[in-house]
Order: sequence, then C-alpha cells, then structure tokens
Amino acid sequence: MKIQVIKNVLDANDRIADENRALFNAKKLFVMNLMSSPGAGKTSLVERTIGALKDLYRIGVIEGDIQDTCDADRVAALGIPVVQINTGGGCHLDANMIREALTGLDLDNLDLLIIENVGNLVCPAEFRVGEDIKVMILSTPEGDDKPAKYPLIFQKSAAMLLNKIDLLPYLDFDKEKARHDVLALNPEIAIFELSCRTGDGLGQWFGWLTDRIKGRGRL
Amino acid sequence: MKIQVIKNVLDANDRIADENRALFNAKKLFVMNLMSSPGAGKTSLVERTIGALKDLYRIGVIEGDIQDTCDADRVAALGIPVVQINTGGGCHLDANMIREALTGLDLDNLDLLIIENVGNLVCPAEFRVGEDIKVMILSTPEGDDKPAKYPLIFQKSAAMLLNKIDLLPYLDFDKEKARHDVLALNPEIAIFELSCRTGDGLGQWFGWLTDRIKGRGRL
Repeated sequence: MKIQVIKNVLDANDRIADENRALFNAKKLFVMNLMSSPGAGKTSLVERTIGALKDLYRIGVIEGDIQDTCDADRVAALGIPVVQINTGGGCHLDANMIREALTGLDLDNLDLLIIENVGNLVCPAEFRVGEDIKVMILSTPEGDDKPAKYPLIFQKSAAMLLNKIDLLPYLDFDKEKARHDVLALNPEIAIFELSCRTGDGLGQWFGWLTDRIKGRGRL
Repeated sequence: MKIQVIKNVLDANDRIADENRALFNAKKLFVMNLMSSPGAGKTSLVERTIGALKDLYRIGVIEGDIQDTCDADRVAALGIPVVQINTGGGCHLDANMIREALTGLDLDNLDLLIIENVGNLVCPAEFRVGEDIKVMILSTPEGDDKPAKYPLIFQKSAAMLLNKIDLLPYLDFDKEKARHDVLALNPEIAIFELSCRTGDGLGQWFGWLTDRIKGRGRL
C-alpha cells in the first residue's frame, strides 16, 4: 500500500520533470540541482559560484526551504533573480514545485539556473526535477561514513564537493576512505575538495562547472 | 490529493504510536527518540550515554538507517542489545517500524530504550513512535541558522544537545543567536552544550536524562 503510493508519486513526478527538461532544452538553459545535509554549505557555495561566474553567465536561483527566506535574501543581495519555494514541511523539492517556480523567472535571459534543494541527504536524490546535473556537498564534519549510510545521493550526483576542508585538522575524517567509498558507489563522479569559507579549491569547481555550461552549446 | 495521503499516513501512524506507548507504560520502559542531521553525532552520543549509564540502567537500542549496520555494530560492540531497522530509502522511522523492531528486544529486562532515528532534520519530527521524549542534536558546523530553517524539530524536542563545541573556535557560530532562536520556538526546551569527542559538557546531559528516567518511577 505505502509502496504503491510512493511509486505513483514518483511516476507523476517524472512526467513533470520531463516537461521541465524539454523547456530547459528549448531555452538552452543549464540547470544544476544542488543537494546536501542541512548546514553543509549549499548557500555559501551558491554565493561563491555566483561571485565567480556572474560576469560570464546570466544566473538565476531557486531556493528550496521548509519555511523562511534566509537563503533567498542572501542570493538577492548579490543582484541575482531568485525564487523562493517554501515546502511547508516537505523534505525535498519535486518537479511540480520547480514548474511553479519557473513562472517567476525570465528563462530567456538566463544561462545557468541553480536549484538549491532542501537540506536533506535522503529524499532530494529520489526526485528528478528536470535538471542537467545533480551536485552534492559533503562537509567534513559530517564524517567519512556518509557514503556507506546514504548511498543514493552519491550515486545520483555528477559531482561531490567535499566542503569545509579547513576543519580537517580538527576532525577524525579519513579523506581516502571517503573518496574510495564514493567512487565505489559512483565511478563517474567528479570529486572536489574545497572550503567555501577560505576559498581553497574553488577554482577547480568553477572550471568544471564552466565546462559543463559551455557543453550546453549556447555560449 | 497529496496532502490527503500524508494525513492518512500520519493518522495511521499515531494509532500505532499510541499502542507502542501503552506497551512502554506497561513495561515501565523509558523511551528516547534521538534525531539530528546526518553526521551531527547521534551514534557518538549513544555510545557516550551507554558508557555513562549502563551500570545504572538496562539499556536497549533501536538503530534506524537507510541501509547498512555500521551504527548497530558500534552499539553491539558495547554489549548492548540492539535491533537494526533498515528503511530501504525511507527518510524517517515511523511507529510501525518501531513496533516490528520491539519484537527483537526483551522489554521486561530494559529500563531505557534509545531509538536513533535516520539522519534528517525534517521528517523524523513529524512521526511519533510512542516515545517519552524526543531529543535532538544540533552540531555547531551546521550553523546557527538551523532553528529558523527547520523549526518543527526544535518545537517537538524536550532537549537540544549542541554538539561539537570543540569546533567553535574555527566556526562562525553565534551561540547566543542559536539559543535565542531555539527558545523562541520552544521555551520549555532544555539546552546542553557538549562535545562527544572531548567529553566536555556530557555530565549535565547524563544528569538530566537520569532524572527523566527516574521520573518513570521504576528504579
């Protein structure tokens, strides 16, 4: 019974995700769905990425949160168009929420759309929203056992950003174990080590993302 | 339609939670439902709490995870009876999962049952399982904005453990802001500052929990 409900929800979601995908293709818009645990650094990464790429690309953001507009306020302060989705208790974004949010953005004047999902290492990975790529952040204080415990999000992501590497001297985090376990789940995943706080390692991430955006063929 | 489904699920859950509650009352068993984001330190707190209280109380543990038995293995190594629930993708524990898991424990020979929920700051707070108290961990690297962004779990918890205080010198975490925002959501909540890594602050937590267990009237 319960499984049936979930299956129907996912089927319906995928149909709308395909419609979003077709719209993004028509607009030559590159869409990144950014996922992580609460507090891993999604909004800080969005701010850093906007700072590095806003003179190269026209960027828009959709912020997903249970409630409030803290994160959207941070993005708006950078002069970037942003739409807030408040899920009202929902633990992930789905394709229909994104479809609704798109009506608040001028898609003809965007090259890159960043969707910041609700902070959750589980359900966001299950729901396609029509994105080109899923990207996830793992922050070092969360521990090196997260790939073993939450495998789906690592399997679904095109890139994993290991954030807060500035804290490594104060943690028992085994980078090689984490890297090994992530690659065992997803041999194709790109892994970047960085710190949104200090800026270390961000350049490689910007380069990788820029290559993907260029690959969309618009610019 | 979607809201209807969720409401039915929650209604059905509450009926089973009430049955679990009646069973716990009959057995004079104190039950704590422990919740947090992934990697905030739930299993480390369970280990520390077992170490401090196992000579005073007979303790059992239910471990909730998407898959794997990493955390249950850590608890079993302490000589404590433990049952693993693998949700197979589900992002929270519900009352029926707990009912099933209880068949694996000798409730007549337990004083304290610790339920370690799936790492998630959203949905676990919505599902009663029949517990005496919900307790949550917020770890300092997650940031001081979490009460504003994930209010329900703070509202539902009898205690919030601010873990990883040893990392405060390396973070931009405003303890007073966090405390203020948590108390605004839940004026009754008990707040403890501690580090499962260094052991700082754990004594006050053990004392508070012991008082609650004694309050159950068995010992």
